[in-house]
Amino acid sequence: MFFVVFTVLFAGESIAQNSLPSAESTDPAVMGWMLGTPPDAAKLVRHDDLSFYQFPRTRWTFSHFRELLPTKRLWRGAGAGVPLVAMPDGAIDGVEFTPMGQSTVMSFGDMLTATYADAALVLHKGDVVYENYFGATSRETPHISFSMTKSYYGTLAAMLVEEGQLEEDKLVRDYLPELADSGFATATVRQILDMTTAIDYSEDYTDPDAHVFDFARSGGIFPRGDYDGPEGFYAYVATLKAKGKHGNAFSYRSVNTEVLGWLIARVTGSNAVDLLQERIWSRLGAEEDAYILIDTLGTGWAAGGLNATLRDHARFGEMMRKGGRWNGAQVVPEVVVDDIRRGGDREKFAKAGYTTLPGASYRNQWWVHHNPNGAFSARGVHGQTIYIDPRAEMVIVRLASHPLAANGNYDDVSLPAYQAVADYLMAQD
Amino acid sequence: MFFVVFTVLFAGESIAQNSLPSAESTDPAVMGWMLGTPPDAAKLVRHDDLSFYQFPRTRWTFSHFRELLPTKRLWRGAGAGVPLVAMPDGAIDGVEFTPMGQSTVMSFGDMLTATYADAALVLHKGDVVYENYFGATSRETPHISFSMTKSYYGTLAAMLVEEGQLEEDKLVRDYLPELADSGFATATVRQILDMTTAIDYSEDYTDPDAHVFDFARSGGIFPRGDYDGPEGFYAYVATLKAKGKHGNAFSYRSVNTEVLGWLIARVTGSNAVDLLQERIWSRLGAEEDAYILIDTLGTGWAAGGLNATLRDHARFGEMMRKGGRWNGAQVVPEVVVDDIRRGGDREKFAKAGYTTLPGASYRNQWWVHHNPNGAFSARGVHGQTIYIDPRAEMVIVRLASHPLAANGNYDDVSLPAYQAVADYLMAQD
Repeated sequence: MFFVVFTVLFAGESIAQNSLPSAESTDPAVMGWMLGTPPDAAKLVRHDDLSFYQFPRTRWTFSHFRELLPTKRLWRGAGAGVPLVAMPDGAIDGVEFTPMGQSTVMSFGDMLTATYADAALVLHKGDVVYENYFGATSRETPHISFSMTKSYYGTLAAMLVEEGQLEEDKLVRDYLPELADSGFATATVRQILDMTTAIDYSEDYTDPDAHVFDFARSGGIFPRGDYDGPEGFYAYVATLKAKGKHGNAFSYRSVNTEVLGWLIARVTGSNAVDLLQERIWSRLGAEEDAYILIDTLGTGWAAGGLNATLRDHARFGEMMRKGGRWNGAQVVPEVVVDDIRRGGDREKFAKAGYTTLPGASYRNQWWVHHNPNGAFSARGVHGQTIYIDPRAEMVIVRLASHPLAANGNYDDVSLPAYQAVADYLMAQD
Repeated sequence: MFFVVFTVLFAGESIAQNSLPSAESTDPAVMGWMLGTPPDAAKLVRHDDLSFYQFPRTRWTFSHFRELLPTKRLWRGAGAGVPLVAMPDGAIDGVEFTPMGQSTVMSFGDMLTATYADAALVLHKGDVVYENYFGATSRETPHISFSMTKSYYGTLAAMLVEEGQLEEDKLVRDYLPELADSGFATATVRQILDMTTAIDYSEDYTDPDAHVFDFARSGGIFPRGDYDGPEGFYAYVATLKAKGKHGNAFSYRSVNTEVLGWLIARVTGSNAVDLLQERIWSRLGAEEDAYILIDTLGTGWAAGGLNATLRDHARFGEMMRKGGRWNGAQVVPEVVVDDIRRGGDREKFAKAGYTTLPGASYRNQWWVHHNPNGAFSARGVHGQTIYIDPRAEMVIVRLASHPLAANGNYDDVSLPAYQAVADYLMAQD
């Protein structure tokens, strides 16, 4: 059964974009998922049969995860949020750009439709110059951010490194004896932070036997089915072995971030989710609570479980753009932001062969573009992005439910679109 | 296994209060449930083994349900909540009363400890004169309200009756043909609202074969185990048969409220949870979002699934005390509140034999005490209460995790305590 399901979901990786059903024809509000009390069988979205993770139901799921799985709250703090002032600029929707490798132009608005955006926002100098919601996502709806979660955890961990609570040159086994027999044992904290470990772990979503699915089953994010491995994210990562030598190349493996979450918990004696709430989330002046998916032992899914609203991600992005200063406080030390902006090792990154990200690097769980504008970004599968452009004083957040998992499938339109909006905004100054 | 579990949990019904472990010795913060990442096996609270519903783990569970089960949000609305002004009166903790059938006095504060309170608040003329949090519950933490949920749904349904959307003399089968073969078919909407239906359904928590456990399994609130009945709250209630004649006697059966939720959904074409959010919750000026437990088909558990903070329940209670007017709006029509305050049929209620509630009645899913102060209340198992005393201009909210389910086990101390605080407050005027 799983094979069939994954084929339906992920075989698309090798399908040309133009053979996919359109965003319009898969609008979750129009499709009526989960409408009716109870809904008709054909309109159900369920966890136990994995239908929640099949496109186009994913377009509903991504803003309704809490209705399918246990979740842990990240409290926004008392009172109203820090206001974001709306100064809409009607021209942004029509800002044109040329997709990578093409000659015909496309507009920012068309890009959002083409990439199955559920919500999109542009901040310029802190004002909301563009904000739009589609389908089943509204202003108050937390949406899954998938691997953007990593950038939140990476920022928190980098703060602990800056404070000396976590030492980047120490080995994982120094902090976590539970991982002494795993492939992570001899990796340094820095290698975990920058994903230069060499772990035998496949995150190829087109392969139904990829490790990533057993990882999801270990925590109950996917239904267990006949999975009989260890329970919980941490017990699972402890089973993984090394493959090659740590530190040689960037190698994107989500399990690094679970180890990072574990390190955060170990050195602070706190729950990493509680610490993320205390040190970052509750200091953003967020409008809404966020929440995170947890495994059956209560551990937050550091690599991909955070759900938050469009505007609250924008507050996080704007705080980072402003050197960590926000809402009258230094939320993240400026040296931590600067370190992220400087980026990681570009040579090691190049070895990973990301054709849509030439010259980029990865640092503290952030993608650093090394373009003339100094852009860096949080990225999550199916199209989630916080894209921070310091030179243009711009933050773009996009929440999406693209049928194809990997961002590499649509970087060709999204990245030039962001650059075009940056150029447009800089021209207005 | 289930028998053993239920014995551990519910055998207490026949145990004298003084043989139970104390609130202090079962403080969930001290016991350290779910602390550690991941927690030690001995500190785990799990859904699949039913440990989440075993005392003393329940003392943690009751304010952490979303970490165990899927939930649906009731949004508080944009911005900060309507302020509740704190005017603490240090004397309330020591207000003394004599428990029913006893001669030695006890204080309000002692009563809270004796009944395993997790949080308690007293409003007098709208000001917070007493507020206290215990164990694992804090001001911002939603706590399960169990059957207090019914009073929210009953109020909403009574509003629809007042508007003519739901006709109280019509039969359930007129609205819900799905129930035409069930025992509910020929019950009137009024009989559902006031729980005078005659349904073959046992809610005796001391009996492991009671229907209530299969009901919980049908929706996934309890782990399914070897349950092989229909899935979902509504499919389950459709299987129930009548036992006797509707309308003769008060007969407290939670399944009536599920039928009520279904009626609300049917006549409005809306999801009952969404409607509750729209018509009531988002109009209270709540500080926090509430949430409700849902079955695997997404249906809110009308009989017991609402989780909300102490203060937000107080806002609901205060709105009801003020005749439905709150936050500059008539949230509930005054005639609906008046109808509840007048109460239901006391003769029919008396037939149910509640020894701690002499002379009381039940109307629109509220308990009406018919005491000199005109008190009425929402009540939930394990000690949840919103107690509204119009004459004393007082609202008391108590959230609790008493090891014994039925409120009848501790009404002997709680009800006289509420009356004593009312007397105290009236004497201050």
